[in-house]
This record gives sequence, structure tokens and C-alpha cells, in this order.
Amino acid sequence: MEVFEKWESEIRGYSRTYPTVFASASNARQVDEAGRSYVDFFAGAGVLNFGHNNPRMKRAMIEFLEADGVAHSLDMATTTKRDFIAKFVSTVLEPRGMTMRLQFMGPTGSNAVEAALKLARKVTGRREVVAFTHGFHGMTLGSLALTGNDVFRRAAGVPLENVHRLPFETAPGGGLASLEAYRAQLADVSSGLLPPAAFVVETIQAEGGVNVASAEWLHAVQRLARDVGALFVIDEIQVGCGRTGSYFSFDGMGLDPDVVCLAKGIGGYGTPLAMNLNRPELDAQWAPGEHTGTFRGQGLSFVAGREALTYFDDDALMTEVRANGERMADALRAVAQEANRGFTVRGRGMIQGLDVGDGAFAKAVAAECFARGMLIGPCGSGGRVLKLIPPLTIPDDDLGEGLETLAGAVRDTL
Amino acid sequence: MEVFEKWESEIRGYSRTYPTVFASASNARQVDEAGRSYVDFFAGAGVLNFGHNNPRMKRAMIEFLEADGVAHSLDMATTTKRDFIAKFVSTVLEPRGMTMRLQFMGPTGSNAVEAALKLARKVTGRREVVAFTHGFHGMTLGSLALTGNDVFRRAAGVPLENVHRLPFETAPGGGLASLEAYRAQLADVSSGLLPPAAFVVETIQAEGGVNVASAEWLHAVQRLARDVGALFVIDEIQVGCGRTGSYFSFDGMGLDPDVVCLAKGIGGYGTPLAMNLNRPELDAQWAPGEHTGTFRGQGLSFVAGREALTYFDDDALMTEVRANGERMADALRAVAQEANRGFTVRGRGMIQGLDVGDGAFAKAVAAECFARGMLIGPCGSGGRVLKLIPPLTIPDDDLGEGLETLAGAVRDTL
Amino acid sequence: MEVFEKWESEIRGYSRTYPTVFASASNARQVDEAGRSYVDFFAGAGVLNFGHNNPRMKRAMIEFLEADGVAHSLDMATTTKRDFIAKFVSTVLEPRGMTMRLQFMGPTGSNAVEAALKLARKVTGRREVVAFTHGFHGMTLGSLALTGNDVFRRAAGVPLENVHRLPFETAPGGGLASLEAYRAQLADVSSGLLPPAAFVVETIQAEGGVNVASAEWLHAVQRLARDVGALFVIDEIQVGCGRTGSYFSFDGMGLDPDVVCLAKGIGGYGTPLAMNLNRPELDAQWAPGEHTGTFRGQGLSFVAGREALTYFDDDALMTEVRANGERMADALRAVAQEANRGFTVRGRGMIQGLDVGDGAFAKAVAAECFARGMLIGPCGSGGRVLKLIPPLTIPDDDLGEGLETLAGAVRDTL
Amino acid sequence: MEVFEKWESEIRGYSRTYPTVFASASNARQVDEAGRSYVDFFAGAGVLNFGHNNPRMKRAMIEFLEADGVAHSLDMATTTKRDFIAKFVSTVLEPRGMTMRLQFMGPTGSNAVEAALKLARKVTGRREVVAFTHGFHGMTLGSLALTGNDVFRRAAGVPLENVHRLPFETAPGGGLASLEAYRAQLADVSSGLLPPAAFVVETIQAEGGVNVASAEWLHAVQRLARDVGALFVIDEIQVGCGRTGSYFSFDGMGLDPDVVCLAKGIGGYGTPLAMNLNRPELDAQWAPGEHTGTFRGQGLSFVAGREALTYFDDDALMTEVRANGERMADALRAVAQEANRGFTVRGRGMIQGLDVGDGAFAKAVAAECFARGMLIGPCGSGGRVLKLIPPLTIPDDDLGEGLETLAGAVRDTL
Repeated sequence: MEVFEKWESEIRGYSRTYPTVFASASNARQVDEAGRSYVDFFAGAGVLNFGHNNPRMKRAMIEFLEADGVAHSLDMATTTKRDFIAKFVSTVLEPRGMTMRLQFMGPTGSNAVEAALKLARKVTGRREVVAFTHGFHGMTLGSLALTGNDVFRRAAGVPLENVHRLPFETAPGGGLASLEAYRAQLADVSSGLLPPAAFVVETIQAEGGVNVASAEWLHAVQRLARDVGALFVIDEIQVGCGRTGSYFSFDGMGLDPDVVCLAKGIGGYGTPLAMNLNRPELDAQWAPGEHTGTFRGQGLSFVAGREALTYFDDDALMTEVRANGERMADALRAVAQEANRGFTVRGRGMIQGLDVGDGAFAKAVAAECFARGMLIGPCGSGGRVLKLIPPLTIPDDDLGEGLETLAGAVRDTL
Repeated sequence: MEVFEKWESEIRGYSRTYPTVFASASNARQVDEAGRSYVDFFAGAGVLNFGHNNPRMKRAMIEFLEADGVAHSLDMATTTKRDFIAKFVSTVLEPRGMTMRLQFMGPTGSNAVEAALKLARKVTGRREVVAFTHGFHGMTLGSLALTGNDVFRRAAGVPLENVHRLPFETAPGGGLASLEAYRAQLADVSSGLLPPAAFVVETIQAEGGVNVASAEWLHAVQRLARDVGALFVIDEIQVGCGRTGSYFSFDGMGLDPDVVCLAKGIGGYGTPLAMNLNRPELDAQWAPGEHTGTFRGQGLSFVAGREALTYFDDDALMTEVRANGERMADALRAVAQEANRGFTVRGRGMIQGLDVGDGAFAKAVAAECFARGMLIGPCGSGGRVLKLIPPLTIPDDDLGEGLETLAGAVRDTL
Repeated sequence: MEVFEKWESEIRGYSRTYPTVFASASNARQVDEAGRSYVDFFAGAGVLNFGHNNPRMKRAMIEFLEADGVAHSLDMATTTKRDFIAKFVSTVLEPRGMTMRLQFMGPTGSNAVEAALKLARKVTGRREVVAFTHGFHGMTLGSLALTGNDVFRRAAGVPLENVHRLPFETAPGGGLASLEAYRAQLADVSSGLLPPAAFVVETIQAEGGVNVASAEWLHAVQRLARDVGALFVIDEIQVGCGRTGSYFSFDGMGLDPDVVCLAKGIGGYGTPLAMNLNRPELDAQWAPGEHTGTFRGQGLSFVAGREALTYFDDDALMTEVRANGERMADALRAVAQEANRGFTVRGRGMIQGLDVGDGAFAKAVAAECFARGMLIGPCGSGGRVLKLIPPLTIPDDDLGEGLETLAGAVRDTL
Repeated sequence: MEVFEKWESEIRGYSRTYPTVFASASNARQVDEAGRSYVDFFAGAGVLNFGHNNPRMKRAMIEFLEADGVAHSLDMATTTKRDFIAKFVSTVLEPRGMTMRLQFMGPTGSNAVEAALKLARKVTGRREVVAFTHGFHGMTLGSLALTGNDVFRRAAGVPLENVHRLPFETAPGGGLASLEAYRAQLADVSSGLLPPAAFVVETIQAEGGVNVASAEWLHAVQRLARDVGALFVIDEIQVGCGRTGSYFSFDGMGLDPDVVCLAKGIGGYGTPLAMNLNRPELDAQWAPGEHTGTFRGQGLSFVAGREALTYFDDDALMTEVRANGERMADALRAVAQEANRGFTVRGRGMIQGLDVGDGAFAKAVAAECFARGMLIGPCGSGGRVLKLIPPLTIPDDDLGEGLETLAGAVRDTL
């Protein structure tokens, strides 16, 4: 670790939480250089939906490299990118009757959100964007303005403007009433409020504490957005790509977003990729090159990402995800009941959170898990929620081991 | 191309400029699916310093994949990352006596700049940052506020604040006088100006038109920054990593920046990576996790980037770069002379620009080059500068072919 | 009128509403140059609480002029100013046990609010200020940012920042629930909200539509301000100085504001004066001269304002105001009942509003009143509320005439 | 003084500088309650151009009061206001061939500037306004953003945005070169600068240190404004109304401003009044009531202000002002020469400054003057300039006495 301590920036975080040097990884396992194996319930912060070093993707990537495929192409057309697009269209869009346009940008979720904000502001000619308390949308100034977390916001060093903040459904002051109050204020010409360009919402706030919005509330947000002439933008970065048991976390809810932001899992192998889906008539208002980025065209990401999409050719994986989600929730509820400390369990599919109400306790549990060979991370305000987001492809044994390890760690930490 | 036209966002740009579908690439060549080969004088906007699909990197990446190396690790410690850091330290930092800390963030140049801004604002407690006309620093709101280009700025849709704009050395109103005028204004308590947190400068404005700053002017900027208590930040994203004939574009100038932003070429293979070098006493002010990002730990980028650093084990490549740069400049000067239209030639090492004074003409030349089998892109205000940034590893034949193609295209376009 | 039409700015307003040239005025009467007399239910927008050309004030002012009193003194000490201060202290502050410091600034209400904002921000080190929908606080950029009215806001031409908007008690989404929701959001570190420097509130929104806050709600605002470390600022500019039947509109409510903004009526004769009352320990944080203004020391305003304070030596006028207020409210309720169109009546003391729900109708009524020899003005969203604010000293006959004129005008306009 | 110390805000300033209580005043004399007489070289910060309690104005005001003229009228038409407008038109506008429209607003200079900014932004649809270092334009957020002084700016407590700052002609970095540099930057699409809505300039920066702009430079500012589509706004608040030896400080220069801001001296007697002159085709873009203010219609100010205009019926006073100005400048030059400390003398007409280069010294001289029976105030950065702005009507004896007092005070303070 000395190399990291001596040369890497003091800002490093996870290498402090998990103080070992990892040497290899496979599906739901990371192995450190001492040979110790850890079951991974963190999955690269929700990136590795299909496991570390997914063998199908690995094979495809090696073939691509050996064939001298175009690894880096900005937004030039390549055969690899075409294959990815075609596969995304046939697997995701067409079955849902969606006609969205695919926009590629710098390969981070933050870039995706920044692009969505630009489009919303351009299309509406408005400045202000509605974001929700506890939301997490990125670290660059545009997306950070939407992010709720105080620590991140203060690091900006400048005022974060042009955002109107509403409480998330499950947050203090939240629910349908606050949406209606805002609607009434917007309708009131002396309210001093500006009409918004967009509502940007996560269906499940992953970083924010595994806060799950109801379909009813999401519909109310969408309806409000439509009624006031704003775009309805779903930030699907952490909970899309199959995490909740369907490709989109909002599948089956009958929602009709104007923009969907994707990143993290879309690149399959941990290979960076970000992509927005834009309603065509909105997308048509982009001028070529208005929002660019060097790493828009990542051949390896397209290859791995295309392979990832094959998991959605049938419902096998998603069925498993829903079953695993139930198993995880059951296990957490058992932990909560045994603890008898008012813990709550929240989630959908394979994102499940155990809210222990206390960041210090959650941190201690995570540390104890690590000591026992498991990677898990806290999230939410003050880090009070233990978030379980293992690879969707985690073997039953590893899932069981992780759940038992967590139960033991909680028990012994109490 | 129909897949792109039907499904990709209207914002797509390069696939319109180079209207073909590329299937493979190798060193300074891209080949489209019809088998046509193009000599590449664009190198992925300055990313592919070591050529497309560099064989040494490719081999290392395949080995890494086969060994199940940790492909995605956030900012956990991995053996691969350690190898990269150690190699960077021994190859770049130690020979220069530099003790900077390495900070990784979301793998785009824009993220690097955003991180630098946060650090500068945090360390100084100031808001305003000095940027220069024609500068290009990224597309997200924080870095975009530094970027000069009007088209990009308007796409923000919100006021871009907290930046004080000075003319670049070679821009209208530029030179030492404007720095001294600004110094005098800052010293004047009734100037109404805020003391700046940082000066962010490119030694050569690549996107801005291959505008080359002198060492004298850069020293004046650094001195002014020091004198007014601001950080001196060099954005080395496009012209670092060997592009100018030495690792840093400012090597040999005796400059001592507080932060150096790196991206593009640092990942070697077009694999995304961004990294800031922070002066240790400034870096010490970061709190862990204050600026995060999902794709901070990219195993493939570390592997390829480490391999790229071996090109700096000796001076062979850099010697060649300087020679090639001369050859390119000579060729461009000949073109300019023959054209007799007031064209000017600017650059250093293997970034050379031919300023034809007219964006429409430059665009026509680039189109003619493409028709003749060459990729080249315009830059600068209105796109009036043809920018030559081939891979540093370009074979002599390809370099010669490209220069001849360009000369012919200019001749015939006139 | 040709002089005005030819030479005065197109921005002129009241000379269009009341298209005649006034030549003289006395108590509740304005007389135009044709000799036509109008009963004045507008009182210079709430300035002339003691009538036009109040004879006691007039005599004092003439004496002051003849004695060469110091008419203009910036914030130098003068005998006249001392007399005013001493009278204000003995009449208003001491009987209430208040120890506030008197701050003079540019003689407009807007300047008073701007000064209060500076003090709040300075004392707390915070930027954001809470204002309420439908609030009116002035026209300069700082106070305008608090003002709710859309027409005024758009005229700013720049974003109006640093204000957090809550619904007023009686506005859509208002009441105690919205205060509690905001409290909860502030307590939530991931809410993305900044802690406020101050809550600025009118007890009765005069321009906003004669919206009357309850003591309970005002206490809740004060308590919330205290709890979150913000100042509690009452903008008393239009409804203070006796308008509601006591000197302060909040008398008897047990409130304890940190800053009270006064203007309009404080100068007595329509002579400009503005004054803030600042809690001493907050006021102590002002550095001398931090907020200045040329017309801070107005001798004529001090003389007339001092005379005005004698109306509060006993309760005679205030008793009358309360009785007149009842009479006005009764008359309006009769109008509302007769009209049977859902009109509502709101107010306290001698500020009473008839909300006719429709700006065009209210405008027509006001025009009809003018035609019949009465000045009255609409307020509120779209101008839908007829606001009655005659001089507190209005003779019974004039009050009766005005109320009858209004009733007749409503009847005939329907 | 105890009343002031006990009850007035700590922000009070001049009552500390001149620690006595004034009881009466006449022309260039203020007399304190102990009967001590002071010669006044400060004139209420440039308000009392026609002396304290000017007898012609006093008589007119008393007559107005006795006749029950309309003292307060918002922007209703009154005979008094009409007389003022007609007199201003015939005396000031028509002889100059000016067709400007007169706009009245809240009666402070700051309100005048705020109104000018709104008009400029509305007319151009632009946000940013050019202001100059050392400029003073007011204390409310819009005008304060233009003001250069650091102490005042910091008191805002919020970022002051939407202003581009250029050095004043005589300030560090100033002169024609900086205007040309700015022009070049604006012409450069990649400069990152916004086109400005207006240039707001004082011909002589009074608060800023008696900095005198040349006609050549002012023309360059006007030309630049015209060329870039911005308004040319002259803030004439302190040096207009005859101060420099002609009605406007820019008379005879051939300038053609779009907006002229007037306040201070326009009301004659120290009675508050502010007025903008707007070019008619710009003024036509105001909608009625877009910028309002309670104290727009001040009968006493119109009466006194009308009387003040009679001083411009012939050239007698202005001739005297020019002669007095020479006498003042001569006296100051003699002081400077005798002191032999590098003092400089600046000014035009009866605004003259002695720059002693050191705020503490200037403050000591002012205190010594006060001790000797004279009121004079420092201005400029750190208060290093002694500013002489006696009433234009000062008797020769008083002028002589004041100049001698100052000379003696400087001599003895050295």
C-alpha cells in the first residue's frame, strides 16, 4: 500500500475502506495479492451487473483487440458501435415501442446528466431544473448542482445555482402533497418561481440511501413536468441495466420519460460508457457537436456492452434477479428483526438497503464485513444505509455467503 | 450509415465529417468497412499518441484480460494501478524531481479540470478562476465556464459564472501587457475585481487554434498567480504525454505548476483515463472522497497507460517527434508559401497548425483530404486552422503521404 | 397632460390610471387643476397615514424652513434628527421595552430592505434569504429578488438569486405545513438546501393582495428562523406606522423580530424617510459606513415624522382606526354579499381589500371610482384586489362617501 | 451626542467624523448647537450645489406648503411636477437639442442607476454591463455590482454578478488601450465574453478620487458602446447640475449618451429627487409601471429643483463656478508645491481633489480642518484624496477662508 500512501492523492477513499491490494476478480469475487478472496456486494458501485471479468465479454473483447477493431473513435461511425446500437435497439427499444435517439458523450454518468441538462434548457429556453433531496447525479458543476449531498456540494467552492429542490417521495416533507404545492406555486404568477426546464429524478435513489419511489409518485412527477412544459428526465445510471429485475427500473410503470440517462452498467465490463436516450423531437434540436467529449467512442465498451445486452434476449437473468432480490430482502428483514433496533429494509430486485439509522454503526458493520471477506458499502445521509448491490450474476453460494457474513457482522457489531 | 442516421442523436458530428464506417485501425491508419485505408492525422483528437492498437499495449491488455486482472475498481488499490503509478513516478516525476500527488477521477479531461477547480477554490477560499480566450477545458459546467468557444458556451443554457477572462498571449489584446494590467487592477482595492483562486492555462491551445504560448509569457502567468495567491494550473490534456517532443509540453521551461491536468494520451490505447498532478501541500487539503467518480479505476487504461510510459524510458521517440515536427512545419510552410494567401504555420513538435484564415476553406480542404484518404480536422475560431496531430509513432511513409495529400488538397481547393 | 405625454417616460403609470393633473391636496382629498375634488382611498400607496398636508406637520415644517434648520445632513448629527430619534424612542420603543437601534439609509423602502439583507448576510455568513410568494419588498436588485410579482421580476433582466421562496400563509401550498416541510428539509444534510440568513415577511401583504398572516403562523416563522439560526425580519413598510390600528402591525402578537423595516408613513408628510430597527447585538456588527446613502438625513422628514409620532401619544387615533377599519370591512362585506359573485374581504384596521377575483373587473371598478371622484387602486395577482388604504385621519364624511362611491361603482360595473 | 450613541445604529459615519450636533445651515455654512460655524466644503456629498437653505428655494417651498400643493404623488400628474418638467425641458434639454424622456424613480442615485440597468438589459436582451474600476454607482445590489470599492462590495454578502470591469482611464491599466483590447476580445467569438448591455461611466469619478476622464477617452467609450450594440450611460449624479461649470459635466464634449442618471443636486435643496434621461426610442420600450417606487413624486423637490434650474437661465453662476474652480485648483497646487510630497491636484470646475497619497494623512487633515471650523471629506482608494465640493454659490470670503484653513491644516499636519 505504500505506493498509494506515498503517491496517490489524499482524496482516495475506497482504498482506505478496503485496505488491501486487489490482484484479480471474477464474477462476484475479488482476490487480493495475498490470495484472500472477497465476496463482492458492491460491484464497482453498481457497474458490474454482469460480474467481474464476465467470460463472454472477455472473449469478445480479446477477439476485438486481436482483430484491431477501432478502440477509440470519438463519434465517428464504426462497425463496433453500429453493432452496439443495433443490439440496443432490437433488445431494449423496439420491444418497448420506444423511438428514442441514442446520444453518446464523455463516458461518465455525470457527463450524461450534464448533456441532459443542456438539452432540457435548450429545448425549453428555461434555466431552472427541479431536483430532489437525497438525489445523486454527479460531481461536475452542472450535475453536482442537482446532487443533494452536503459534503459534495460544499466541495464545489462556488454557488450551485439554477436548481429548484423538492423533497423526494420518501424524504421529509415529500410525497404527493409537495408536488401539488409546487404545482400551485408555479401556477401563481406572483410566486417568484421560475418555470422549470426539467424534473430530474431517480426511481430509486441508490447513493441517497436506497430510497424507492412509487409508480404513483413518479407518474405525478411526470404529469407535473408535462403540465408545466418541462422535460421528465429519469437518471437510470445506477439502477438501470437490469438491476431491479427488468432492463429499466421503470419498466411496467407506464412512464414515458423525455430523456433517460444511462451509464455504469451499460458498458458491461466496467468499461466506461454513458448514453442518453432522447425523445426524437427533442433530440432534433441538438446542433451537431454542441456537446462533445473525447471518449465518446469506446470500442471495448461497445463490445462488452453489446454482449451485456444478450442477457436481455430472454427473461432468464431477470427472473433470477427478482428471485435473488426477494432472497436478499428476506435475509435483511431477518437481520432487522433479530437486531430489534428499528432497522428498515428497502429496495427492489438486486438493490436492497438495510437502514440502520446510524452512519457509525453502518461503517463498523462494513468494516467487520471486510474483515470477514466481504465488500459492502454504506450510502444515504451520514452513510446510515448498508447497500447490497452484488453482480446480478452472483452464484447462489456467494449470495448466501454474503448474506450470512452480513448477518454475522451486524450481530457481532451490535 | 443508416443505423446511425436513424438511431443516433442529431448531435453526432465526426460521422458527418468522415462519412464512412470504420472497421479497423492500426498505428496511423484507419480502414473502413469497404476496405479503404485512411492516413490518420487526427489521432482521436490527440488521444492516440502511440498509434491505433499499439501492439505492445494490445498484448499487455490481452494478458491482463486473460489473467482476470481487476478491470474496474473505483479507487480501490489494485496491483495494476500500483504498477501504473510506480511507472509514472519513476519515468516522469522522479527524473524531474517532481513530488506531485496523483489524483484519479472520472476518466475525462473535463473531470480533471473540474477537480482542479474544486481544489483551487478549496485551498484559496476564493471563487473566481482566470481562464484565457480561446481556451478549451471541457464541456461540463465547471470546465465549460473556462472554455472560450461561443458555440459550446451558449449550449450551457445557464450563465457561466466565476471566471475572469484574460486574452491568451497570442489573442487580440494579449501578451504581457494584459497580465500586468490585470495585476495592477488586482492590486487596486477599488477595482471591483475578486482575487482569483487559480490561473488555468494551456501551453498550446490545441482546440483553440494551435496557439503557442512562449515560455516568457507562461512564466509571467505563473509569477502573477504566485504573487496574488492563486494556483497555477496547466491543462496538459491535449499537448502532454509526448506530443510536443517531451513528456510535458512545458518541460525545459523551468515552470513549476501547482496542478497539472492530464487525460487523453495518458491512457495509451484510447482507453479512458484522467489524472491530475497536485502539489503535495495543496493535495493534503483534500478530504477523502470529496470528488469521486465511478470510472476512476480502469484496469485496461492502467495497463495500456503503463506500457505507453515505456516510450519515455529513453529519448528515442521524443527525438523522432521533434524531427517529425520540423518536417511537418516545413511542409506546412511550403504549402503556405505556395498558396500565397497569408496562411500561417504554428506549432511545436507533432502538433502543427496551418491557419488558413477562413473556416469554410479549411473545411473544404479537410473534406478534400478525406476524399483522398486522409483524416484531418479543423480547429480554432470558426474552424480556420487545420490541425495536424498524427500519432507520434506514425511511420515516415504515412507522414509523407499525409503531408503530400494535404498539400494537394490545399492546392486543388484554392 | 401634454407635457407629461411628450416628455415623461413611457414607464409612467398612475398618471394613466388617474388621467388628470392634481393641483392641491388636503387630508383625504386631492383636487385637480380643474377644481374637481377626489376622495383619496390610496393615500400615496400607504404613505399618507396622517393625510395630505397635515396642518400640524405643515406648520412645523414651515417653522423649520424659516429657522434654517439643517435640511440635508447625510448622517451627521443634527438637532432635528435628535428630536426625531428621541420622540421615536419615547413613543414607540420604550413603551414596548424595545432596545432596537435605528438605522437610516437611502429614503426608500427598497433601501431599507437592502440594508436588512446585508446585515442578515453579514451576521450569519450565509447567502440565501427566505421570502414568501406574493411578497413585495422593492425594486432594486436585492429587494426585487424577494419580491414575488412576475412582471417586476422579469424587468430585472438578470437572474435573481440567493432567495429561497416559501408560500405565504394564505397562498397556494401555504400554512404551517410548508414551514414544517422546509424545517425538515433544512435538518436533512442531503437536502441540497442552504441554511438561510433571514426570513423576510410582511404581516399583511399589501401590494400582494391584502393577504393577512395569522399571529400563529408568524410565530411559526419566527420560531423556525430562530431554530435554524436565521434572522427574523419584518417588512413593516406599508402596514406599519398605525395603519392596522396599532403602531406596528405586529403589536400584541408577542413577536420579537431581529430587524423591522420602516419607510412610507414614517416620514409623515410624504417626505421620504426609511429606517430599520436592528436588534442591538446584531447592529453592533455593522462597521461604520458599510451601507451609505446620500439622502439619509432629511430634516423635513424628521420634522414631519416627529410630528406624526405625536399621534401615538395617546390611543385616540388608533381607536378611531380600529373603528374605521370595522366600518370599512362591514361596507365591503355588504358589497360582496350584494354582488354575490364570490368576492372576499380581507384586512385589519384601515387596510382592507375586496378580492373580486378578476383583474379586469377590479380595473374597471377603479376607473369607475375615478370617474365618480375617488382614488382607489387594485393590487394582488393580476390586480384582482381593490385595496382601501385611506388616510388614517380621514373625516367620517369622506370615508362614508368613498365607501358609497365604491359600492356604487361595483354595482354599476357588474 | 448621547442620543445618537445610544440609539442610532453603529453604522453611522459622518457623525463620528464631524462629532458635533448641527442646528442650522445657510449657504456654505453649518452652525452647531453650540453656535460654532463651519465653512462647508462638502455640501452634503455634492447635493447642495446651491447652498444650504437657498433663500429662493426656501421661499418657493414655503409658498408651496401654504398653498397645499401636492407633496407626495407617486407618479400622478401634478401642476408642480409639470412646472419642473417644463422648466427642465426649456432650460436644459431644448438649448442642447436633446429629446430625452424624463424618468422618475425612487429618489436616490442608486435607484436611478438600477433603473438604467433595467432599461439597458431590457432593450438589448443582454445581461452583462461594463463598469469601471473606482466607479461609484450606489449601494443597492444592482448598482453596487457596478461600484468598485471593496469595502462596499464585501458588505453585499452575495456574489455581485453580471458586470464586466474595465479600468477607468486614469486607473492602473487604463486608457485607450484597454478599451481597444476589450473591443478586440468582444470581436473574437472564442473570447468567452458576453456582449454587454451598457457601459456605465462617470465623467469624473467623485467618490472614486476625483478622477477626471478626458473627452477623447469618453468618446472612445461611447464609440465602443455603439459599435458593440450597447447603451452608453453617463452617471452624472455627483458631477452634474452645474458642478463642473456647465449643467452637464459632459457639455461641450459632443457626447451623445443613451441614458443620463441624475440625482443629488437635481432636487436643489437637499430634497430627494432622482431622474434619468432616456433616449426616446429606448424609453419607448418601457412598459408602464415596470420600475416603480413610492417617493417618485416629491412636490417639495420639484419646487426646489425648479428654482435651482433658474440658475441656468443665464451663464452667471457657471462663469463664477469656472472661476472659482481655477481659484481652488491654484490654491491646491500651491499647497501641493509647498508640501513637496508628491501631492497631485485633479478636478474640473468646483470639484477639485488633492491627492495626498495616504488615507491616514488625509483623514488627519480633515480632522484638523474640522477642528478649525471646516467640513471637508476624503475620497478615493483608502480615502487618500481630499475632495473639495463647496456649494457653487459659496461667497468669496468663505471660499477663501476654506482654502486657507485647508492649507494651514495640511501644513500643520505634515
